[in-house]
Parts: sequence; structure tokens; C-alpha cells
Amino acid sequence: MANLITIEQKILKKNADLALENRREIEGRGLYALGLVSAPGSGKTSLLERSLAALQGRIRCAVIEGDVQTDRDAQRIAALDVPVVQIVTNGTCHLEARMVQEALPRLPPRDLDLLFIENVGNLVCPSSYDLGEHARAVLLSVTEGEDKPIKYPSMFRTADVLVLTKIDLLPHLDYDIEAARRFARQVNPALRIFEVSTRDGSGMDAWTAFLAEQVAARQRAAG
Amino acid sequence: MANLITIEQKILKKNADLALENRREIEGRGLYALGLVSAPGSGKTSLLERSLAALQGRIRCAVIEGDVQTDRDAQRIAALDVPVVQIVTNGTCHLEARMVQEALPRLPPRDLDLLFIENVGNLVCPSSYDLGEHARAVLLSVTEGEDKPIKYPSMFRTADVLVLTKIDLLPHLDYDIEAARRFARQVNPALRIFEVSTRDGSGMDAWTAFLAEQVAARQRAAG
Repeated sequence: MANLITIEQKILKKNADLALENRREIEGRGLYALGLVSAPGSGKTSLLERSLAALQGRIRCAVIEGDVQTDRDAQRIAALDVPVVQIVTNGTCHLEARMVQEALPRLPPRDLDLLFIENVGNLVCPSSYDLGEHARAVLLSVTEGEDKPIKYPSMFRTADVLVLTKIDLLPHLDYDIEAARRFARQVNPALRIFEVSTRDGSGMDAWTAFLAEQVAARQRAAG
Repeated sequence: MANLITIEQKILKKNADLALENRREIEGRGLYALGLVSAPGSGKTSLLERSLAALQGRIRCAVIEGDVQTDRDAQRIAALDVPVVQIVTNGTCHLEARMVQEALPRLPPRDLDLLFIENVGNLVCPSSYDLGEHARAVLLSVTEGEDKPIKYPSMFRTADVLVLTKIDLLPHLDYDIEAARRFARQVNPALRIFEVSTRDGSGMDAWTAFLAEQVAARQRAAG
């Protein structure tokens, strides 16, 4: 295994270098970039759709979509008239900085404020790969069980924001949302936590206000 | 990347050899072994708990539990008085045959019929690793969206059985279960499909009858 570990370290080092270049490129364009990660089916694309609709006319958004196969998610985003670039990883279980580096030049060259990077649905592997985003939001749907943060700690430790999704289903579940928050804070006390339903819109105002703040803060920092 | 691909092929070849040894060991003990795979939070452990309770007194079960961190799932199984061995992968995103090989000697040496091997929650990486099980069941909860089989095709192609879980939530979702079945069959026409709720028990009789049949067929094959 020693050889494999050395190669993995080299890959992660190379990835970190490329992520740094991505971040420079992203900042050079005056963009704030947010990564979205979660298990398959936690609602990343649905949250994106609702966020893009809510921000329309206020904040100019673009999306990089990562999928193992198919461009179904990119099609959902393109239907909203938002610039989107699809990365199909062909079996690879996570996005890497080099894939994002290839995607960036395919975005419109200017007049954008906010770039979402939606990763492959996977609560393990994407946590190791910096893509050059400014912050990472991990989604956890309330149908998935409370204990995921301690069972998949690396993903929650490397995230800045936790979005608890599908909260409209809470009345139909035996789910202890306080326990989920407690487990998440146990792994990462600094996590900022939102609770949303893209179905009935609960919590979407607070979430989109947060996005707008982050964009404004980045633009102030860029002068 | 050429080096990495060679190493991956070597790892998979070595894994296949160990899986063959595992299968011999499992069959030498007169066991039928079923792998359980899914995204995090699709309900593998809940399905296990309900299945073990339903089979109690008829079929003698044991469990190998795979998790990235924590032994919470193993504790849930042990509470049912079923022999369980925990594998903590320490960050690895899938079980491998060598891990199962280390776990097998820690099971009770005889008087078992059915071995469940619960993999790490991940719809991508576990699909490449044969563990020596006789069949693989992939779970997909109806809260995860219909299109997962075509977005994560390898997992559905390498599975023998699809269990659609959490069907008690269907009245509260915009979910097209026929579309889910259609996408699954598109990827793997041979998939045997079950629909269950561990909350209200729907579909559990058909599922446990299937397990009992598989065990009986294996015991007939073993003479």
C-alpha cells in the first residue's frame, strides 16, 4: 500500500496547486464560488434550481455540474436560462480541481457574480479535493438519519455550511433534527446551519440572503 | 495517470482473487451471503434490523458491518442478539475483499445460514469490489429521486436486486415510482425489484420470503 499512498499524496498535492490556480481565476473574474456536496439524492440540484430562481435579477449566477454519468442535472439548470457547464466524470466518484480548470473557460467571460459547483453525489471522496471554491456547503436531507455527520466526519469537517433539506417531510418522519444539529456541531463547531424545504420554500429566504451576503463580502474584498 | 490505472487494475485483480477465497470460505460454512449497498441514509441498517427480526427462529443470521467511522450500526445489530463484526474503514469509501477476509474468522464458526455484508454508504466506489458475496442488493429510497440508476449506473448494473425503500413516504412526495423502476431496468433488465417500508412493514413479507428462498437454494446447491 505504500506506493499507493505516495501516489495519492502526489495527486492531492497536484490537486491543491490546481485549486489555487482555479481560485485565482475565479477571483480574477470577480466571482464568489460555492461548492455543493452531499449523498446522492439529498437535493443539491433542487436547492440550486430554487436558489437560482430566487436570485434572478439580483445576482448573476452560473453553474458547474459534476456527474458520474448523464447531463440530466445540467439540463435542469439550463432550463432556467442560467449558464451551465457539465462535467461527466465517467465513473470517477468526485470532482477534481483539474476538471474544474477545464470547465472554467467554458463559462461566459464576464458579468457573473456567483458560481455554484455541484459535486458528484458522494459523502466520502469529494471531501479530499479542494476545487478552488470559496466555501463548501454540505446538504443532508432529513430522510437520511441524524448520525451522518459522525459516520462521514471528513465531509462535515471540511464544509463551511450545512443545509438540512426536505424539512417539509419532518411531520412524517421519526427524525430528531436537534440530534442532527448536535452531531454536526460535534464534528465541526464552526458549521453555519440552514434548514430548508425546496418543496414549500421554508427557509429559502434565509439561505438566499446568506448567498447574497457572501457575494457582497467577496466583491468588497476584491475592492 | 497511466501508472495509477495500472495500480488500480492490480488492486482490482488482487481483490477478485481474495473475493474468490472469501466465497469458498463462506460456502464452506454453508452460508448464503448477501451484500447491501446504497447511498448514505437509504435505510440499509433499518432494513437489516427488520429483516433480522422477521427471520428470527427460522434462519440463523450474522452481519458484517462496514462504516467509514463509528460502530453505531453494529451496535444497532448487536442489540438484536445477532452476531455482528464491525469493519471501520478509517476513511476508505468502500469495503474490499481483504477487509471481509479479516472479518470472517471473527464470526461464530458454525450454525449460521445467512450472512449480510453492509457496505459503506456510497453509490459509486463499492460497485467495483467483489467481496465474495453471492448476490448484491442495492437500496434506493423514494426520497432520493427517480433517476439515480442512470446517474450511478455501475452500482445498479452490478446488483442483482433493487430494494426501493421508505415507500410509506410516497403520499408526501412528488415521486414517480414507475419511472424509478423503468430507469433501473434500463440499466439492468435482470434486476429483481422489491418495494418496502421498514416503518409500516409494507413489502417486508415478500422481501423476507425472497431471502429464505435464496438461503434454501444455496443449501440445496451445497447438497
